[in-house]
Amino acid sequence: MARMAICRCRAVTPSRSISQSPDEKAGVMAICQETLNVWEKRAPLAPHHVEQLIQNGIKVIVQPSERRAYNDTAYSQMGAEVQEDISEASLVIGVKQVPIDHLLPNKTYAFFSQIAKGQLSNISLLNAVLKKNIRLIDYRRMVDSEGTPVLGFGKYAGAAGMINILHVIGLRLLALGHYTPFLHIAPCHSYSNFEVARQAVRVAGSKISLGQMPNPIGPITFIFTGTGAVLQGAQEILQELPLEYSHPQCLPTFLENGALNKLHACVLQKQDLYKHKNGGNFDNKEFLSHPERYAGTFSKIAPYASCVVNGLPWTPSSSRLISIRDAKALLQPRTLLPPGSSRLPHRLLAICDLSDDPEGSIEFAKECTAVDSPFCLYDPEEDTYKHSFRERGVMLCSIDMMSAQIARNATDCFGSLLLPYIRDMFRSSAMTPFEDYDAGPIVKNAVITSNGKLTFNFKYT
Amino acid sequence: MARMAICRCRAVTPSRSISQSPDEKAGVMAICQETLNVWEKRAPLAPHHVEQLIQNGIKVIVQPSERRAYNDTAYSQMGAEVQEDISEASLVIGVKQVPIDHLLPNKTYAFFSQIAKGQLSNISLLNAVLKKNIRLIDYRRMVDSEGTPVLGFGKYAGAAGMINILHVIGLRLLALGHYTPFLHIAPCHSYSNFEVARQAVRVAGSKISLGQMPNPIGPITFIFTGTGAVLQGAQEILQELPLEYSHPQCLPTFLENGALNKLHACVLQKQDLYKHKNGGNFDNKEFLSHPERYAGTFSKIAPYASCVVNGLPWTPSSSRLISIRDAKALLQPRTLLPPGSSRLPHRLLAICDLSDDPEGSIEFAKECTAVDSPFCLYDPEEDTYKHSFRERGVMLCSIDMMSAQIARNATDCFGSLLLPYIRDMFRSSAMTPFEDYDAGPIVKNAVITSNGKLTFNFKYT
Repeated sequence: MARMAICRCRAVTPSRSISQSPDEKAGVMAICQETLNVWEKRAPLAPHHVEQLIQNGIKVIVQPSERRAYNDTAYSQMGAEVQEDISEASLVIGVKQVPIDHLLPNKTYAFFSQIAKGQLSNISLLNAVLKKNIRLIDYRRMVDSEGTPVLGFGKYAGAAGMINILHVIGLRLLALGHYTPFLHIAPCHSYSNFEVARQAVRVAGSKISLGQMPNPIGPITFIFTGTGAVLQGAQEILQELPLEYSHPQCLPTFLENGALNKLHACVLQKQDLYKHKNGGNFDNKEFLSHPERYAGTFSKIAPYASCVVNGLPWTPSSSRLISIRDAKALLQPRTLLPPGSSRLPHRLLAICDLSDDPEGSIEFAKECTAVDSPFCLYDPEEDTYKHSFRERGVMLCSIDMMSAQIARNATDCFGSLLLPYIRDMFRSSAMTPFEDYDAGPIVKNAVITSNGKLTFNFKYT
Repeated sequence: MARMAICRCRAVTPSRSISQSPDEKAGVMAICQETLNVWEKRAPLAPHHVEQLIQNGIKVIVQPSERRAYNDTAYSQMGAEVQEDISEASLVIGVKQVPIDHLLPNKTYAFFSQIAKGQLSNISLLNAVLKKNIRLIDYRRMVDSEGTPVLGFGKYAGAAGMINILHVIGLRLLALGHYTPFLHIAPCHSYSNFEVARQAVRVAGSKISLGQMPNPIGPITFIFTGTGAVLQGAQEILQELPLEYSHPQCLPTFLENGALNKLHACVLQKQDLYKHKNGGNFDNKEFLSHPERYAGTFSKIAPYASCVVNGLPWTPSSSRLISIRDAKALLQPRTLLPPGSSRLPHRLLAICDLSDDPEGSIEFAKECTAVDSPFCLYDPEEDTYKHSFRERGVMLCSIDMMSAQIARNATDCFGSLLLPYIRDMFRSSAMTPFEDYDAGPIVKNAVITSNGKLTFNFKYT
């Protein structure tokens, strides 16, 4: 399950602000290097967040990195010590998992551990954390009273995904014989920030408005499934194109009469996508505890989609949004294409999976893609994935760490959400009993290991 | 051998202009669809060229295409008939090879046939052209009195190649741990035209000037080999970055003391790259007829290059610029890197082969790359090519039809060079004897088949 908090980058109203602790004993914290993935440019805090911590008497060490979106100088100018040695720090924060041999014993660490996701590769990380007496705070476990995660890269993951899928659609359409304004939207990592990317999408939008979409491809429809900040980010990008939102019922009419100088979009939420198997009304509480009582209905709407942007989380007992079998049907020649209106082989061009649940709602959306190769072509007939734009299939984008592609914005957003909790993290001492750890529930409930043992918070799902 | 004419797009001074033929009998010519490659967006003439022909009484039919950089409407607005049926035309022009089953008999065709290059796949094209009694004008054979081709996409091939290699360097450096301003240069096809691409490079340049290149990678050097419009286009793009050209002898000094807020470049021509095996001076005429008498010297300079941009044509008896063996040596750890100055594994990052001679001057530069995958990583130790930025090797870009990525500019340039010769082409009748064909030498000498036979011009090299 991946639900990200809405990015409240500029309006943080924490219950216990970092600036409310002038009496707190000064100490040392560190931001560590990110080494898990070569494309990782994000950091947990931006230089201006670090400045606030320093003004409150905290010494901040930043491990040098040539890869971070904000360079070492930007942190040192705010007063951070940039050095390899972080042994002085009691709290070490990062974004993604810290390699086992980098973990320092008897410290408090905070990062996305992925341990709760139960990946085999992370069992050794868990063992190392326990052996080294590390108190580990897992960002993903930091949830509010309703269970909603308080930390996330928010809309920037969705925005990056949307930019990538528009880029992919441009190349796919050219490969199918149609030169469209989408072609001039670059892969997201080529833009230095969100605004530059947005501007490029806007330029493509003005060309669409001017009638530069070729007639034979017919109207183009984007269907969003899910809610939350990630979807919101994707929609914010699409909003830069001439767009008309419509109700799913209107899609058939649109496809017959739709103008080519705009795109159509449709947002579907859980209640639009699932119906009770016994014919009752949709009940969100029941759905969350008993998803198996609901059947998916997306297969009726999917044939109208040129592109599906999925932000719907998935559990093994839920119906899938698009199964491999559905995909086979959707890629039948000219599914639901009115005669003569399109020369495309089928309507569905691309799927952008923003759900962070590989092989979940979209059965065949593996984490097959990376920043240097941000797409693949899935052929449901042969169940194969190819690095191609030319053959049979549907283009697929499903990048873990999408927001690393607009890393400055993502870091600003994440850091603003994290900053109010740093004080609580900072009060931790890995050498003292967990029971004595004086922290608010959001941080304390996110501690999954302490004193060489799993805490009661730990769930291995 | 690939020598392209310098693009004189704005200053065409033909000896026999199309506008000098008001007395010419009106007729019909056609621009055919390009079907060889899905990424082909170029056309032999732009709409404004077609307008000139129509004003001179020529009827122009344009086969519809959704892929061309200029759309059908742009041509019809200039007076062209846009229709599938081109049987009325006596002259059919295109860019790349026309598929055999599309070839209409008893017509004059003009395109880049690639037949002279002797590719096996084109033997069947040659047979079909002969069988169908087609008079074929091969653009590549249109040369001036000095043997220099008069047609080409000129600087736009070089510019597209340079943009792509800068993009690739950005990704490669990030994969090696260094976030640089190169990362925000997109692949060339993402830019709608040359000026937009140039602007993006300029923005990266201003960041380099501001000192945003990370210290540990040390000074970056670009070495150009060759001359001509293609290289000129590549240099025109690099010129948007803060750049200092230097003599090869100065490279060692630069690498020790070079500032990081600019790049260094060096241009090497044949006389810098080959020395007489008997110790004599470089003599271009002798070199052209007896390249085997000269030995290559590039291996002494190559260790100073971060990126080699090669425009040097090659014949089998010439020395190679970089052999597989040379590449092995260049990728030895820290070749010529002063201690402590760089954390890169070796100096050489990328090679952009603009020579259009695969496996020529650069022994291992295959045509392994395409618009949807415009690079590969070559590992000389294992002689393998991978779609990766992360492993051992040197990044390689060698795209045939590079200029298709900035197709409007390339079409404008090519069309302006071609336009003055259309009249001569138009005077051809494939049904009459070749001897009676009244055309200037540039066009007439480029006819390789006529009346079902090879002409005396045909050379199968």
